[in-house]
Amino acid sequence: MIYVSRKEHFNAAHKLYNPAWSKEKNEQVFGPCANENWHGHNFELIVTVKGTPDPDTGFVVDLKKLSTLIRNEVIDKLDHKNLNMDVDFMKDKLASCENLVIEIWKILEPRVKEISKYGAMHCIRLYETPRNYVEYFGE
Amino acid sequence: MIYVSRKEHFNAAHKLYNPAWSKEKNEQVFGPCANENWHGHNFELIVTVKGTPDPDTGFVVDLKKLSTLIRNEVIDKLDHKNLNMDVDFMKDKLASCENLVIEIWKILEPRVKEISKYGAMHCIRLYETPRNYVEYFGE
Amino acid sequence: MIYVSRKEHFNAAHKLYNPAWSKEKNEQVFGPCANENWHGHNFELIVTVKGTPDPDTGFVVDLKKLSTLIRNEVIDKLDHKNLNMDVDFMKDKLASCENLVIEIWKILEPRVKEISKYGAMHCIRLYETPRNYVEYFGE
Amino acid sequence: MIYVSRKEHFNAAHKLYNPAWSKEKNEQVFGPCANENWHGHNFELIVTVKGTPDPDTGFVVDLKKLSTLIRNEVIDKLDHKNLNMDVDFMKDKLASCENLVIEIWKILEPRVKEISKYGAMHCIRLYETPRNYVEYFGE
Amino acid sequence: MIYVSRKEHFNAAHKLYNPAWSKEKNEQVFGPCANENWHGHNFELIVTVKGTPDPDTGFVVDLKKLSTLIRNEVIDKLDHKNLNMDVDFMKDKLASCENLVIEIWKILEPRVKEISKYGAMHCIRLYETPRNYVEYFGE
Amino acid sequence: MIYVSRKEHFNAAHKLYNPAWSKEKNEQVFGPCANENWHGHNFELIVTVKGTPDPDTGFVVDLKKLSTLIRNEVIDKLDHKNLNMDVDFMKDKLASCENLVIEIWKILEPRVKEISKYGAMHCIRLYETPRNYVEYFGE
Repeated sequence: MIYVSRKEHFNAAHKLYNPAWSKEKNEQVFGPCANENWHGHNFELIVTVKGTPDPDTGFVVDLKKLSTLIRNEVIDKLDHKNLNMDVDFMKDKLASCENLVIEIWKILEPRVKEISKYGAMHCIRLYETPRNYVEYFGE
Repeated sequence: MIYVSRKEHFNAAHKLYNPAWSKEKNEQVFGPCANENWHGHNFELIVTVKGTPDPDTGFVVDLKKLSTLIRNEVIDKLDHKNLNMDVDFMKDKLASCENLVIEIWKILEPRVKEISKYGAMHCIRLYETPRNYVEYFGE
Repeated sequence: MIYVSRKEHFNAAHKLYNPAWSKEKNEQVFGPCANENWHGHNFELIVTVKGTPDPDTGFVVDLKKLSTLIRNEVIDKLDHKNLNMDVDFMKDKLASCENLVIEIWKILEPRVKEISKYGAMHCIRLYETPRNYVEYFGE
Repeated sequence: MIYVSRKEHFNAAHKLYNPAWSKEKNEQVFGPCANENWHGHNFELIVTVKGTPDPDTGFVVDLKKLSTLIRNEVIDKLDHKNLNMDVDFMKDKLASCENLVIEIWKILEPRVKEISKYGAMHCIRLYETPRNYVEYFGE
Repeated sequence: MIYVSRKEHFNAAHKLYNPAWSKEKNEQVFGPCANENWHGHNFELIVTVKGTPDPDTGFVVDLKKLSTLIRNEVIDKLDHKNLNMDVDFMKDKLASCENLVIEIWKILEPRVKEISKYGAMHCIRLYETPRNYVEYFGE
Repeated sequence: MIYVSRKEHFNAAHKLYNPAWSKEKNEQVFGPCANENWHGHNFELIVTVKGTPDPDTGFVVDLKKLSTLIRNEVIDKLDHKNLNMDVDFMKDKLASCENLVIEIWKILEPRVKEISKYGAMHCIRLYETPRNYVEYFGE
């Protein structure tokens, strides 16, 4: 079993805001991350696929195909966007990294099988800043 | 002459948008950077002070004082903010990095003299992403 | 299950030195790391907490609270210190990264429960240099 | 159990090319990576050893010995080399990162026991670029 | 005057080899860099343009246009190529970074004027590895 | 004129301490950097040489020779050392980065001529941390 990873990035705005709470409660819980007028990040996304290498290509997954898949299905929907307002799969969800990696997994996991006979999704890692990141392994 | 640099960071939302133009013209000129609902970045700011070392301390400028100055006068006004809406010194200006470094220079240049007998402002460098950055030397 | 990580740093002096051995034996085993007059590093510490997101906040753990906990309980005791001489929890222990991560785990593991209903300690990773690092998962 | 990692690097040329296929088929499958006249990378190799710390040294493995082992057995055979033409252990294998990490594991795994009573090989990670990397855990 | 920089990358093979010399002389002067069968690098290229910001856009140069220019005129000719064999503008030149930055300057300098009224070429910086880089300012 | 740079690193302990002052005055001025028992850093040193390329080699300076020179004359005297106690050329000087770059310039500037007909020292840059660095151009 080999684990193959591809890093992509996107730049987006968001705020941490629970619409069920007052503005004061949001500011108390989320601090400056609740700023009404948004803030933003250069997000770095790492997608890891696991499997055995295809004997003909030496590849678990063709990284060009994986990069294209991530860009088409995820990056194009997030880059230069507002995570709370512009992203269909984040609608009615708190725009936290924790929720983002779960939704990105749901999008990519079934599609990886289409581009690789030998590979399966293993992990989604998302850096919000160089000092804060989250990981999800599908369960 | 020694050049001493300190790096600080802030996370902010912005859009590139000229209010004198139509939405279409803005999208044509600025592309996805004009997204109405904003996007954002992890900005990295490097402030460089030049001068001769103080013989008593070996310092051109005390980097703790320089860091405190940058945080109080610049970072606190930009971090977790919207550069178009929340920042007094960017009011009525295009929220580009080029304009930001000029305004940051104007704020810090006179204040550096207050924290250092031996130093003077030399450069403001601002990274919008790891691949895009601008520099300003005061003229 | 989501894994959430926070990176903090500290600058410290240390030497690798077994007091049960002669100076010569220490130099033979530890080489320049045994330098009597110390050397030092910019250490990078990554703390990973695992759990399910709180439905109200989207957080496994509030990263601001985690950062404050790490700074108060660990960084303040290590930063700008001598790991062999100044650190109570390293007393009578070899000042190796292996021993440091075990002690940091012991300090933080019970405290994470106090700041998060949903999370538990998963991993302590410590970079001594960009090329050398150790990890500990609590057993 | 502690996990200890050491990073080394090498600069090498390679191409992705299956000699059982025509030039056209290779270009179709591998794209620019099949360029007949080679291309190359600054590879970064991370070797992770796991074990319990030696009570006398606080080490799972002496990182200087691990570094020397990796350099003598792996880096000296790959650095400033052509992975398809100059490397005995890659002969008749596709010069993919997936195949490289398997071969590097085979070389280092038995040798780690020689330099450490307390440690065993855990992982080989290889970065081909900062955006593409693979990992192998020995099975 | 503002200085605006854009970083791009390419992966290429090369060798340092003076065809006027014997193989032995090349190996003596260039060491492992003269390896007959090539080696390679992940090169990082930083292009800096200087000028005053356009009052309508806040831009010295549109970084998307600069990125497209660099990719079309430089990266497409170098990426996944052999610098000694595949690159028209390096023909009959030693494939050193010093010679590369001079040739890249010659290509880009006249073209920057086509994409920016307000900017002019200032610097080409090329990283061969994270530890080795060269810069050229056009004279 | 081409500018060629080489990065090297060293790990060292130091404290900022003016022996003409009381312990209290040192703590007041230098804060935690005055910790009696030292602290330390992973320093990164960048040496830049300027000149025209040698027509036979394409080199301003052979980077292997420059690396060897820096290691022999500077790194070997600083790595795994105490900058206040172990370093002859820092004797009776405050162990600040400002003073270090001046002394490193004095050591390397005359020696660069010995390894390169075409090059001359241009700059010494020293990173104490990724956020703090100083530069010296010889005057």
